[in-house]
Amino acid sequence: MDYENLECERDGEYVTITLSRPDRRNCLSTQVLMELEHAVRTTGEHDDVAGIVLASTGPVFSSGHDLAEMAGMTGDELHELFTVCTRAMTSLAEVPQVVIAQVQGLATAAGAQLAASTDLVVASEEARFATPGGKGGLFCHTPMVAVARQIGRKRAAEMALTGGAIDAATAVQWGLVNRVVPAVDLEQATRDFMGYATRGSRYAKGLGKATMYAQMDMTFQDAYELAVSVMSNAAASGDGREWPTAFVEKRRPEWSHEG
Amino acid sequence: MDYENLECERDGEYVTITLSRPDRRNCLSTQVLMELEHAVRTTGEHDDVAGIVLASTGPVFSSGHDLAEMAGMTGDELHELFTVCTRAMTSLAEVPQVVIAQVQGLATAAGAQLAASTDLVVASEEARFATPGGKGGLFCHTPMVAVARQIGRKRAAEMALTGGAIDAATAVQWGLVNRVVPAVDLEQATRDFMGYATRGSRYAKGLGKATMYAQMDMTFQDAYELAVSVMSNAAASGDGREWPTAFVEKRRPEWSHEG
Amino acid sequence: MDYENLECERDGEYVTITLSRPDRRNCLSTQVLMELEHAVRTTGEHDDVAGIVLASTGPVFSSGHDLAEMAGMTGDELHELFTVCTRAMTSLAEVPQVVIAQVQGLATAAGAQLAASTDLVVASEEARFATPGGKGGLFCHTPMVAVARQIGRKRAAEMALTGGAIDAATAVQWGLVNRVVPAVDLEQATRDFMGYATRGSRYAKGLGKATMYAQMDMTFQDAYELAVSVMSNAAASGDGREWPTAFVEKRRPEWSHEG
Repeated sequence: MDYENLECERDGEYVTITLSRPDRRNCLSTQVLMELEHAVRTTGEHDDVAGIVLASTGPVFSSGHDLAEMAGMTGDELHELFTVCTRAMTSLAEVPQVVIAQVQGLATAAGAQLAASTDLVVASEEARFATPGGKGGLFCHTPMVAVARQIGRKRAAEMALTGGAIDAATAVQWGLVNRVVPAVDLEQATRDFMGYATRGSRYAKGLGKATMYAQMDMTFQDAYELAVSVMSNAAASGDGREWPTAFVEKRRPEWSHEG
Repeated sequence: MDYENLECERDGEYVTITLSRPDRRNCLSTQVLMELEHAVRTTGEHDDVAGIVLASTGPVFSSGHDLAEMAGMTGDELHELFTVCTRAMTSLAEVPQVVIAQVQGLATAAGAQLAASTDLVVASEEARFATPGGKGGLFCHTPMVAVARQIGRKRAAEMALTGGAIDAATAVQWGLVNRVVPAVDLEQATRDFMGYATRGSRYAKGLGKATMYAQMDMTFQDAYELAVSVMSNAAASGDGREWPTAFVEKRRPEWSHEG
Repeated sequence: MDYENLECERDGEYVTITLSRPDRRNCLSTQVLMELEHAVRTTGEHDDVAGIVLASTGPVFSSGHDLAEMAGMTGDELHELFTVCTRAMTSLAEVPQVVIAQVQGLATAAGAQLAASTDLVVASEEARFATPGGKGGLFCHTPMVAVARQIGRKRAAEMALTGGAIDAATAVQWGLVNRVVPAVDLEQATRDFMGYATRGSRYAKGLGKATMYAQMDMTFQDAYELAVSVMSNAAASGDGREWPTAFVEKRRPEWSHEG
C-alpha cells in the first residue's frame, strides 16, 4: 500500500512507519491520521511482526493538527476530525506489537499526543514536548487525555496551562519518555531498545499489552479479577504453558507465538 | 469585601489572596475556610481576571485545621467543618482562572491539601510539606485525597504513615511542586510563572482546566469522548476558531476571551 | 504456629515475617502463599502489633511463582493459584499495621508484586526489581496490577515489555521504593523507618491506611465523600478526639489506640 504522507517499511520482524512530510512539519491532517491508522492497524494484523517503530523526518516530529484544515471546518466536521484522530492515537495501544516512538525533534499538540500514545519513547537530546493550546485560543483537550495521566496533575497543569515545551531530559524524569540519546545515536538506540522489548513470545506480549492497559483503567479489584482470569488461561496452553514446561524439562523454551 | 483572615488584592489581570493570620499560623478554621471559598469563587466570577495567587504571611503557609475549634465539636459539626473544607479546596480547581500557590513555609495537614488543590505551586527553598495526622491521633484522611494521587502510592504511604515533612526539592521531584526558588525570589518567580501560565485566551484556558481535571478522573474511553466533544465545540467558534483563522490569514490572533 | 517456608517472629510492637527458603529462591508456591497470607492476617488481628516487616533470606528476595508447580496444573488449578496469590498480596494492604518490605536482592515477577503490595519498601543497593514474563512466554499480568499504577504508563510498559530488571536507585526515582541503603545497613534502616512510620495511634493509622487505599481507587468526588465521612467520625471520639483535646489542654496526648 502506498501512502502520501507516510513511509511504511518492513525489515524482518519490524515495521517502521515514518511521517514523511517535513515540509508540512508532519502535521496531522485528516488524511495523515487516516493513513497512520491504516498503516498501524494493517501492520497489527501481521502476527509475524513483533514491533513497530513510529519515526519522523525533519526537525519536527509532528506539529499536531493542520490548522489550515481546521480553519474551514464546521463543528460536525471538527468532531469527525477529532474522532478520526482518537482512533489513530488509540490504535497504537490496541495493536499487539510493541510500538516505539523515535522522536527526533519537537512533538507538539497532537504530535505530543502521538508520542504519548505509543508504548515506549526513545528521544533525541534535541527532542521537546509541548501542549501549546493553552497559550493560544484552543486548549489541548484531546492531547491531554494521553499526556496528563502519564505525568501527574501538577506537571500536566504546567504543560497545559503554560503551553511551554519541556526538553527530553525533563520528559524522562516525568516518565513521558523512556530513553534519551544523542541525535546521532537515535536510530540505533531505538533499534536496540526494540530488540530488548521484543524478546520472547509475541503472542504473550500482545495479550499482555492489551491486558495491562485495560487493567490500569479499572478499579484495583476489577483489575485483579481481569488479570487473574487472563493469567490462568494464558498459563494453561501455548507459550504460557511452554515456559514452565521447558523449565521443568531443563531446556530452552521454544515459542510458537500462539496461545 | 473585607475579610478577617485574608487579604484580597487585585493588580490588573491578577488577584492575590493572602492568608494573613501568621499569629495563628494561618490555620484553617471554619471562618477562614468560608472566607477563602468566598474570595476564590467571587474572584472566579470575574472573567477579566486571568490568575489567582494564593499566598500567605509568616513562617507557616498554613498549619491546617484549627485544633482548638475541633476539640469542641460534635460529630455533626465536624462533618460540616470537613464539608466546608472540601468546598473551599475544590473551589480552586473549579474556578476558570489559573491558580498558583506561593508557598513560603510549612504547608501541613489541610495546609498541604490547600497547596495540592491549586493548579500550580511555586515554593521557597524553605517550604516543607507534611501530612502529620499519621504520627498523631487523627490520620490526614481528607488531605490525602488531594495529595495521594499527585505523588503515587508508596510516597503517599510514606507521607501519610510517617507524618514526616518533605522539603521543597523532594516535593518538586515527586511532582507536588512546579518550581522551587530562593525565598528572596519567591514573589517575583510566582509573578513570572503566572505571566507564563496566563498567556492566550482566558476563555480557552478556563474551559481547558475544567475539562482536564474532569477527564483525568474518568476511564480512558470516557475521557476521550468528553475531550473530543469539548474540543470540537471549542474549535468551531470564538477564540478556538480565531487561532486557525489567524494562522491562515498570517496575522497575530486577537483574543476575545470568549467561546 | 509453625510454617514450613516462613519464619514469623515478634519483637515488642513489631512482627517480622521472613521468607526462609533461599534454596528455592523464596518462590511463591501455593503453600508459601497460603502460609504468607495466614501469617499476615493472623498478625493483623493483634491490635497491639504496630508494624510488620516482610523480609527474606539469601540473594533473592523472591523469584515469583513456582514454575515447576505451574507446569502440572490445569486451567482451573491455575485460576485457584492466582486467586490465592491475589489474596496473599492484597492482605498486606488490608491489615491495619504498617507493612514494610525489606528487600535484600532480586524481587522478580510475583516477587516484585509482593514488594509493590506492601505499604513501604526499604531496599538494599543490591536489590533489583523485574517483571520478566514479557521476555518469556507468560506476561506478568497479575504482578502488573500492583506495579503499573505505582510507576506510570511508560515505565510500566518498559518493565513489562522488556522484562528487564531495574536497580534500586531507579526504583526509588520511579516511586516503587522509599529508601535505598547499603546492604550492611538494611536491617537497621528498616527498623528505623518502621519506628518513624509507627509513631502515634495504631487505631488512627489502621483506619487511615484502609481509607487512603480505598479513596485512591475512587473518583475525586467519591474519594472526598468517603474521606469526609471517615474523618468526621474519627475526630469525634477516641484518639481522634484526644489529639485536639490534648492540644487545648496543653499536655502531651495519650493514645488509647482506640476509636
